[in-house]
Amino acid sequence: MEERIIASAVALFAEQGFDATTVQQVVDRAEVTKGALYHYFDAKDDLLYEIYHALIGTQTADLDEIVGRGLGASETVRAILVNVVCSTIDRLPEAAVFYREAHKLDADRMAAFRADRRLYHESFRTVIADGQAGGEFAAVVPPDTVVQIAMGVVNQLPVWYRPDGPKSATDLGNEIADFVLAALRPN
Amino acid sequence: MEERIIASAVALFAEQGFDATTVQQVVDRAEVTKGALYHYFDAKDDLLYEIYHALIGTQTADLDEIVGRGLGASETVRAILVNVVCSTIDRLPEAAVFYREAHKLDADRMAAFRADRRLYHESFRTVIADGQAGGEFAAVVPPDTVVQIAMGVVNQLPVWYRPDGPKSATDLGNEIADFVLAALRPN
Repeated sequence: MEERIIASAVALFAEQGFDATTVQQVVDRAEVTKGALYHYFDAKDDLLYEIYHALIGTQTADLDEIVGRGLGASETVRAILVNVVCSTIDRLPEAAVFYREAHKLDADRMAAFRADRRLYHESFRTVIADGQAGGEFAAVVPPDTVVQIAMGVVNQLPVWYRPDGPKSATDLGNEIADFVLAALRPN
Repeated sequence: MEERIIASAVALFAEQGFDATTVQQVVDRAEVTKGALYHYFDAKDDLLYEIYHALIGTQTADLDEIVGRGLGASETVRAILVNVVCSTIDRLPEAAVFYREAHKLDADRMAAFRADRRLYHESFRTVIADGQAGGEFAAVVPPDTVVQIAMGVVNQLPVWYRPDGPKSATDLGNEIADFVLAALRPN
């Protein structure tokens, strides 16, 4: 039921925007009662936050699982990038709606969103920093910049990537990994 | 006067969103007449389009000027990246508002926006492709992917970059250039 409510909110926010959408419309489209919605979500802001939280939550769990495999730094970075490209493309409408409307989150949920994002960024940054400290990666730029570059193309996917286009999510993820690992390889 | 109208529209779109802003409000804030606004802009959509068009127009002219210097491929890529990072950071509110609201452009202006963006992308892509063909750059990934990665971090700047933070626009542009050129260097 929670997923049906989220899917209804994503569709309505995409069609008419966050401001113009009412909780009643979300309820009607999801074919649930208002009581059911308020069981899962406090308010309309909560729906917007949860759209992103569901995505970044899965991605952070995936990243932790990948790091837990104990692979080398290069293999870890490749697995992280293929995962985050594929999972973003799997939820392209959610990502598109969230990035458009995120500035409308109230202060508490904006803080929660930033904390979610920082957690992912920090875990990814540690992989890069450890690889640089261990000599598997060159310290060509600071690890924060590596993460900003890698996540920049990921977060822009909703703007230009077409799932029915010629390049699969996995192929694109591997190309981005090829590029990032080429930049990080020691001289 | 045109610049004052654009500045007024940027401020209002940022504060209250594109949908909630009226042409009358833009006129009032800019302290111009409605007639003056309609001398420069057809409609509210036109204001949104022009916010972006002014930015990408400058960036495309800058890119053409850089390419016209006839430098080597590496120096050209560095100059392009430092330029596009600095010019985006110079107009961060404009970039932020445009990327949030771009999906509301009408069909004609959406087509014009896409054509503007494609022109920049294609010129940059040619620099990468020529560098790869001439052997100065490795063909680690296709030139389109190089441009998507480089422009991904640029287009995400409004989301995270703080002009009062510790890293200057020029330093960040040079770090991004260091990374991209490291990825492209031949084995």
